[in-house]
Amino acid sequence: MATRKTDRRASARRIEYLQIECVTPELDGGRYSVKRVVGDTVIVGADIIKEGHDQVAAHVLYKGPGDDDWLSSPLTFDFDSDRWYGSFVADRVGRWTFTVEAWTDVFGTWRYGLKKKIDAGQDVATELLEGAQIARTASRSTRSAHARATLINTAKVLEDRRDTAIEKRVRRALDDEFLALIAEAYRPPDLTRYRRDLTITVDRERGRFAAWYEMFPRSATTPDHGPPRHGTFHDAARRLPGIAELGFDVVYLPPIHPIGRSFRKGKNNSLAAQLDDVGSPWAIGNEHGGHTAIEPALGTIEDFDNFVREANELGLEIALDYALQCSPDHPWVKEHPDWFHVRVDGTIKYAENPPKKYQDIYPLNFWCDDRQNLWNACRDIFLYWIEHGVKTFRVDNPHTKPLAFWEWVIQDVQRVHPDVIFFSEAFTRPKRMKALGKLGFTMSYTYFTWKNEPWALEQYLEELTQTPAVEYFRGNLFANTPDILNEYLVHGGRAAFRIRLLLAGTLLPLYGIYSGFELIENVPVQPGSEEYLNSEKYELRPRSFDAEGNINDDIRRLNAMRRAHPALQRYANLTFHKAENPTILFYRKAAWEPLVQWTGSKPHPISPKMAEALDVVPPGGVQDILVIVNTDPFRPQETMVHVPIREMGIDEEQPYIVEDLLTGARFMWRGVRNYVRLDPAVEPAHVLLVHPPSSAASGSNQP
Amino acid sequence: MATRKTDRRASARRIEYLQIECVTPELDGGRYSVKRVVGDTVIVGADIIKEGHDQVAAHVLYKGPGDDDWLSSPLTFDFDSDRWYGSFVADRVGRWTFTVEAWTDVFGTWRYGLKKKIDAGQDVATELLEGAQIARTASRSTRSAHARATLINTAKVLEDRRDTAIEKRVRRALDDEFLALIAEAYRPPDLTRYRRDLTITVDRERGRFAAWYEMFPRSATTPDHGPPRHGTFHDAARRLPGIAELGFDVVYLPPIHPIGRSFRKGKNNSLAAQLDDVGSPWAIGNEHGGHTAIEPALGTIEDFDNFVREANELGLEIALDYALQCSPDHPWVKEHPDWFHVRVDGTIKYAENPPKKYQDIYPLNFWCDDRQNLWNACRDIFLYWIEHGVKTFRVDNPHTKPLAFWEWVIQDVQRVHPDVIFFSEAFTRPKRMKALGKLGFTMSYTYFTWKNEPWALEQYLEELTQTPAVEYFRGNLFANTPDILNEYLVHGGRAAFRIRLLLAGTLLPLYGIYSGFELIENVPVQPGSEEYLNSEKYELRPRSFDAEGNINDDIRRLNAMRRAHPALQRYANLTFHKAENPTILFYRKAAWEPLVQWTGSKPHPISPKMAEALDVVPPGGVQDILVIVNTDPFRPQETMVHVPIREMGIDEEQPYIVEDLLTGARFMWRGVRNYVRLDPAVEPAHVLLVHPPSSAASGSNQP
Repeated sequence: MATRKTDRRASARRIEYLQIECVTPELDGGRYSVKRVVGDTVIVGADIIKEGHDQVAAHVLYKGPGDDDWLSSPLTFDFDSDRWYGSFVADRVGRWTFTVEAWTDVFGTWRYGLKKKIDAGQDVATELLEGAQIARTASRSTRSAHARATLINTAKVLEDRRDTAIEKRVRRALDDEFLALIAEAYRPPDLTRYRRDLTITVDRERGRFAAWYEMFPRSATTPDHGPPRHGTFHDAARRLPGIAELGFDVVYLPPIHPIGRSFRKGKNNSLAAQLDDVGSPWAIGNEHGGHTAIEPALGTIEDFDNFVREANELGLEIALDYALQCSPDHPWVKEHPDWFHVRVDGTIKYAENPPKKYQDIYPLNFWCDDRQNLWNACRDIFLYWIEHGVKTFRVDNPHTKPLAFWEWVIQDVQRVHPDVIFFSEAFTRPKRMKALGKLGFTMSYTYFTWKNEPWALEQYLEELTQTPAVEYFRGNLFANTPDILNEYLVHGGRAAFRIRLLLAGTLLPLYGIYSGFELIENVPVQPGSEEYLNSEKYELRPRSFDAEGNINDDIRRLNAMRRAHPALQRYANLTFHKAENPTILFYRKAAWEPLVQWTGSKPHPISPKMAEALDVVPPGGVQDILVIVNTDPFRPQETMVHVPIREMGIDEEQPYIVEDLLTGARFMWRGVRNYVRLDPAVEPAHVLLVHPPSSAASGSNQP
Repeated sequence: MATRKTDRRASARRIEYLQIECVTPELDGGRYSVKRVVGDTVIVGADIIKEGHDQVAAHVLYKGPGDDDWLSSPLTFDFDSDRWYGSFVADRVGRWTFTVEAWTDVFGTWRYGLKKKIDAGQDVATELLEGAQIARTASRSTRSAHARATLINTAKVLEDRRDTAIEKRVRRALDDEFLALIAEAYRPPDLTRYRRDLTITVDRERGRFAAWYEMFPRSATTPDHGPPRHGTFHDAARRLPGIAELGFDVVYLPPIHPIGRSFRKGKNNSLAAQLDDVGSPWAIGNEHGGHTAIEPALGTIEDFDNFVREANELGLEIALDYALQCSPDHPWVKEHPDWFHVRVDGTIKYAENPPKKYQDIYPLNFWCDDRQNLWNACRDIFLYWIEHGVKTFRVDNPHTKPLAFWEWVIQDVQRVHPDVIFFSEAFTRPKRMKALGKLGFTMSYTYFTWKNEPWALEQYLEELTQTPAVEYFRGNLFANTPDILNEYLVHGGRAAFRIRLLLAGTLLPLYGIYSGFELIENVPVQPGSEEYLNSEKYELRPRSFDAEGNINDDIRRLNAMRRAHPALQRYANLTFHKAENPTILFYRKAAWEPLVQWTGSKPHPISPKMAEALDVVPPGGVQDILVIVNTDPFRPQETMVHVPIREMGIDEEQPYIVEDLLTGARFMWRGVRNYVRLDPAVEPAHVLLVHPPSSAASGSNQP
């Protein structure tokens, strides 16, 4: 697709000669950015409406981060949808801008009419003179002396009134060089620009595809018989090769800052801490510092730098927790008491949900009089850790801080550091979670841990992947967190852990686990609670990661599969299909994301023909993956699954091979209905790579 | 619902402390107005998102045409949809504006927290002091001396630190007077306004409910044996009582202006007119004048004024044709040749679609250099006829003139004459037809004439009534036009005419026929053509309107029914239901329009609970209507229809009475499936008024 620089002045007109409507991708009338990942082809769609029968032409104008000049790429008309489509590749991380321009294709209209008259044997003398006029007009706009000369010469040819010249005149009028010259030089008088410039936040790939591992560095010692030693970054660094070997991409650390002493919580969240209790790392700040300091027991900033470097050398990235709240001992409490909620009695307001009191935590008052300095200080926390090599932040409870703050701080940081990723830990109402995505969070926690029935998973994942939310909200499916031990894991044991791991890692390209998951830790603090017994939030929890019963093999296999197969790296390519047994979940990760335009809340698929015109057909060699999961951790289940062979381009009659990426087994299937049996004690799932029918060779049709 | 004036300055803030999203009704991000009819309750919805747990309050701000001050009406939170709703009544014709404001309900949050602490037996000394602070803040914003004094006094009560005062303090803190005072006086510091003001075009009722009748006044003579005499406005006036008696609301006249002589079309659209041929009235203008003149053969402007007056006295409204094109003899061609497309050879360009030439028509060049005068002249045509009592214009082929022109001229006219109705005669691609609706056309022709199969009618009418198009596009279902004689009418004869009449008049509240329809005129100029033989467009066609076989009784009955039953006057209350025989169309016109918010392209029904809170429950006595039409004009058809009893609040077991408004017959039905048989030679349809089960008494269940 040809791309050329355009004259900026030409784009500044305001009269809407043509109506340009329903431009996609657009979020809330352009108020927010949509999201893409670097290298994505951005498909732009628009309805362009003009009176009468003249031909219309249009292009998308776009510019990458920091660009001064617009680039343009043509829009193509799709007759079936009465809609225009174009595309460009977002090849850099950062904030992109685009809009659409349309105009009457005066030359094309003239040329078409001329041809029709010639075909009908009508006189075209006047038409040829009009062509000359267009050529002369164009000659006045071009900067190229050669083009100008050629256009003037063309005009002279077309104006040649001698009868003998007619054949030459018509030939010149219709030749391709003239067409190309006009396309380059003609400035349409009715150039109309869409009323808004739209923005796209282009993230690096880790913003859409990553396997996360959460660990408390203070627990990273080897367990032995005595009371556990407080782990350091040195200890944590020794964990890194193992984590890398399991195939994770991101290691996320809960807060590493000095921990408050006032009202420190004891083991199992008891109100009275013992002297040796380490406290919750989310109660940030003491005499050693606040959000830019390191808990001395973990080491120094140099130790942290080394830890980050070692991680990076292993291909791992370190993500930090960003929790905007302070313990009563945080330096800010003394230095800036006005940054908190000061009550009429002069005390600082702690967090509470009457009758519960959270006296170890002071929330910040984001609308205090010194708001500007407070917001800058909060921004500077990000900048400090970015300087220390951290490019990913898991943001604690963003829904309890003003949305306006997040929008400002994310944009302010990403303006300079567009590769920074913000991960929203908001478990709140769907609209609030989505609002954080719109405002700028790169990805978000989800309700995944509470969705354990196939129907619930299907409904929820469709909401995430088959609604306009795909344009701005990326779910990261954590299978557990220090706060959430779901009863499905409590009751389902090892098989349940294997099932949930596989679901998390294959449903969406972003997933994560919190350490201990691989060891099937599932004892709640009390029956029915989602809190862990002896929760690591309040005490040290050294672990033997090769303890018996671990599911490291499952993790390793899953992460390897995810890296090998593009279908598992895509977000919106998820569709659910029928398994006749309702305890079995059956879904497809398509080789390629569907080309869908979200106009309003309605998906408009782009036709294969148009996809080809836009050069966005899937590359060769990418294969569909079918995932079939028995969600019953206790019993083998069998079912017929209904394979979407038509969508995959497979014939009703032709057998095809599916290859289980978990076991290597290959099966020959045929048609829509095929049989599976899944024993959770052996393998609770199939992850089937679909081989196109031509490569079918052998196998059984009963995997 | 309380409504109060609000301080204008308070509404001018810009920081988005809260996010206000997805405000409805909104069209294309506020670029265009939605449509309502005077007296409608406008339901406003909004998502309001704020961090944390504080309570939120919100209201809709609105103002009617010409209002300087905003009025406000509270928004109520709907927990189930996590959305806020409010409403106001659009009680005047013209352009309304509204937006939404939201803020933290500091007082409500405080009051709720105070109650919780009191219930938990906790100390509330500090809370009471905070309440005093709120009271003092509010006292500074109120203009009422009494309110100020009461608030200061309340603050003093709350600040009373004597132990003995605690009961009195708490009572005062929670009493309703304090609550009401604060609601009136407190100015929230985080008042946030939605980023756009949205507009609503409120039409008079004829914009949504009217029966149209099209007639050529020049044909309004009585047929006899000689060549017909050219009819006048006097003749046409003699037709009016008959038309009024049939129950029509609007009489629409094709152009009444002097008709061009150059290249005048002869009978049956022949290129060579005879001397006595009257020509097509759409070739406007000759030496007697142009768009503001009257064809002398029709009479004078005084005759026209009398005609309009006589119509009005009969309760009829006159609609004129507005066709922006000129015959070569139009005065503008001499006075303003620059308003046309002047070709390089100096001639004026006529309309053509190569190889076809339309030499009797010059299109205007809306983008000529003298554009401003041309556009004003076009606007002044409207103003001229408005002065002569015409408030409705049927606009010929608007899709061949710039959309920007229509948007300007409609707004310019409606600014002074908001009761003027513009009816778009655009038969073009759906997006272009819809664009004209968005830009301001009050109503539009549709594809109805070409939709004759039940499935096609269902699909098309659902597109018109159950998509966001209901917000701005109102279809007027003409059963025929001088240009469209559908083959269904050609082949189906009298029964087909009765069927199409009934469909047009019951599917939507706007419908029309072109004269001759009532006489079953259905001879095409040639087989397969949609043009009439001896089309009235090119010659005089006097008629005997009481000729045998006329369907005047059907028309009279239909229009009376429409006037008597509110369900037939509503637009979006149409739903289709199953008839087991596919030649039978079964639909319901509900007693009340569904309360739907269009967010994007998705309908969100408003819950009955919220409807009650908004006071938009249907008034008593309005009844559902069920329409069952046999679309086979040749044979009786029978079927079981599936009555949507659940939606109508009827029990599975309870019998209910349906009363045929066409024949007066009453039938007792029960449950979902009921039997009907429709003989097109007798009555091709039932129009059944549904009587609630309590009034059921007698009847057969086989109509």
